[in-house]
Amino acid sequence: MRYRILKQEGRAKRAELETVHGTVQTPLFMNVGTVAAIKGAVATSDLEQIKTQVELSNTYHLHVRPGDKIIRQLGGLHKFMSWDRPILTDSGGFQVFSLAGLRKIKEEGVYFRSHIDGRKIFMGPEESMQIQSNLGSTIAMAFDECAPSRADRSYVQASVDRTARWLERCKKEMARLNSLEDTINREQLLFGINQGAIYPDIRIEHAKRISEMELDGYAVGGLAVGETHEEMYHILDQVVPFLPKDKPAYLMGVGTPANILEGVERGIDFFDCVYPTRNGRHGHLYTNQGKINLFNAKYELDDRPIEEGCGCPACRRYSRAYIRHLLKAKEMLGMRLCVLHNLYFYNTMMEEIRDALDEGRFAEYKKRKLTGINPLDQ
Amino acid sequence: MRYRILKQEGRAKRAELETVHGTVQTPLFMNVGTVAAIKGAVATSDLEQIKTQVELSNTYHLHVRPGDKIIRQLGGLHKFMSWDRPILTDSGGFQVFSLAGLRKIKEEGVYFRSHIDGRKIFMGPEESMQIQSNLGSTIAMAFDECAPSRADRSYVQASVDRTARWLERCKKEMARLNSLEDTINREQLLFGINQGAIYPDIRIEHAKRISEMELDGYAVGGLAVGETHEEMYHILDQVVPFLPKDKPAYLMGVGTPANILEGVERGIDFFDCVYPTRNGRHGHLYTNQGKINLFNAKYELDDRPIEEGCGCPACRRYSRAYIRHLLKAKEMLGMRLCVLHNLYFYNTMMEEIRDALDEGRFAEYKKRKLTGINPLDQ
Repeated sequence: MRYRILKQEGRAKRAELETVHGTVQTPLFMNVGTVAAIKGAVATSDLEQIKTQVELSNTYHLHVRPGDKIIRQLGGLHKFMSWDRPILTDSGGFQVFSLAGLRKIKEEGVYFRSHIDGRKIFMGPEESMQIQSNLGSTIAMAFDECAPSRADRSYVQASVDRTARWLERCKKEMARLNSLEDTINREQLLFGINQGAIYPDIRIEHAKRISEMELDGYAVGGLAVGETHEEMYHILDQVVPFLPKDKPAYLMGVGTPANILEGVERGIDFFDCVYPTRNGRHGHLYTNQGKINLFNAKYELDDRPIEEGCGCPACRRYSRAYIRHLLKAKEMLGMRLCVLHNLYFYNTMMEEIRDALDEGRFAEYKKRKLTGINPLDQ
Repeated sequence: MRYRILKQEGRAKRAELETVHGTVQTPLFMNVGTVAAIKGAVATSDLEQIKTQVELSNTYHLHVRPGDKIIRQLGGLHKFMSWDRPILTDSGGFQVFSLAGLRKIKEEGVYFRSHIDGRKIFMGPEESMQIQSNLGSTIAMAFDECAPSRADRSYVQASVDRTARWLERCKKEMARLNSLEDTINREQLLFGINQGAIYPDIRIEHAKRISEMELDGYAVGGLAVGETHEEMYHILDQVVPFLPKDKPAYLMGVGTPANILEGVERGIDFFDCVYPTRNGRHGHLYTNQGKINLFNAKYELDDRPIEEGCGCPACRRYSRAYIRHLLKAKEMLGMRLCVLHNLYFYNTMMEEIRDALDEGRFAEYKKRKLTGINPLDQ
């Protein structure tokens, strides 16, 4: 088995996943590099310093620029961005539904316009798999519709049924692509995505249906898009038990440190979110005493690192006062240092979670960690 | 002697300068970090990877933000930006004359408005020395007026006379500051600045006058501000012989690789210029086969590094195609990698110049290097 559960505590799983690009330890947080680069001038050479296990890039963005065929000609995404560890590519579905203009959803796929140059694009399950195969990522995500969390029941039911039909087509196309001799990564994994907005019965029905398909992993999608945290936790409580326990589970686009702790408790292995990068670029920094905003005047003469004892490249060398100055002067270096710190904070928290699970003290760790998080930031 | 000439070839000098922050080898190129950071998200930890010897920061910019008194309270500029090698601060003179609004020049100094918040500021020789003493840089520059290169003769003569009087005041104030017990760097060096626009006789007269003042070094200022390269070389031919040979010579704000080769030939030790950083941010890259513009479509599928064999952090790992993609996608990482390459190119050229001088083959090196430079870029 590629996926091995090493330890369990309640529903929480401590596992590892073997891939053609190395073995990763879960639970883990993927670091988001939408267009094959982490925002904030963070290079793959930096990721090796901040405990990153999996980099996440975006099928839609790379398809429109520079183009997946160009990346394929250059030897695939790993070579393109100089990163030899695992990469997960999302399917483009979410971006088509959130970014692109004038979209039209049909049984065959989605017609839309590029947000870069307005040109017409069609993407269906086969196209998404072909693009991800051209990129040669370690894990490809199924092409799905991410329906609005407040959509009405009949819309969501029809959407989920179509997403299930699309998943069959994704699986078939991925098998075909992996069988071709000149495919960049012939061991590309495919994760399916559970949808159903905030209707637990629709989600459970869909989870059962896709669980029978023997995919390499399963994601819960369409959360953290407008519903409350309590609704999200409730859905995880209900749905995760219907996903195969012997496959990795991925909670897409989530979230805050508190969300991640709650997700791990409910059996999630993989997380990803733009919060650490986006917050970093705005000078909002994660610490074990809560989030701090470096633009605050009280840091003007503060010669301490962002967090005492932190081993990130920013804290090992620079003070709050210096980084605050850089942010105020709009020097890119300020954003870079903040993003490095935040990603290191997230990646270190995942390491702590794994250690706690290894030692059977996750519940205690979670409780303690949450006391450091301002309720408003949870 | 702090400054030792190790080798000479014609007027070209190969020397070293001992400072309280370590010994530097000249000729050298200072890497410009105007507001205590090199533009392009380059940190002091990066400078150690790209052969930087001296970092240059700006008195005017740091005075208006974050404030030199704040930096002093934080232990000085070296501690603030975490850089323990030499720092040169320019005096603020040039920026007051090029950036600030509504300036009024009087015998006592210059009244002007901040380009950040419009507040009224006065800066004279004493204020400039006090600010640079608060920053605690290794080398302070004298406060001067940088008259427009096309100013008429009578204006330039009056300006140069005032600049000479200001220099006396700078020297006196620096001696006073260095004698105070709580001064951050009590061995701060002071370089004087030769002015005189494009009038060789005014420049020579001024050079003779300031040479008698026994300063730690001498700069030629007010060049590369509108005159032709030939005019600049002509002025160096005429003026440098009247500066003390046993002191370092600094050609301010210059220039292209060709300018630097010509400057070294004429006896210059120190250079600084924003070209490598500014060009890097625009995707214009220095190579030994000439400058290249990575936005050019021909690099779309080019999997070679910017320059084959280059040891910079960009070339060691990333391709032209990848960096071009980053620049086109406006990812900060693209600018960062280009700036790192360009600074490494400049710093490496200086190393080659020193090696050539050491081995008595500078003339030959210069000739060969210039053949790799497009005449339009010289």
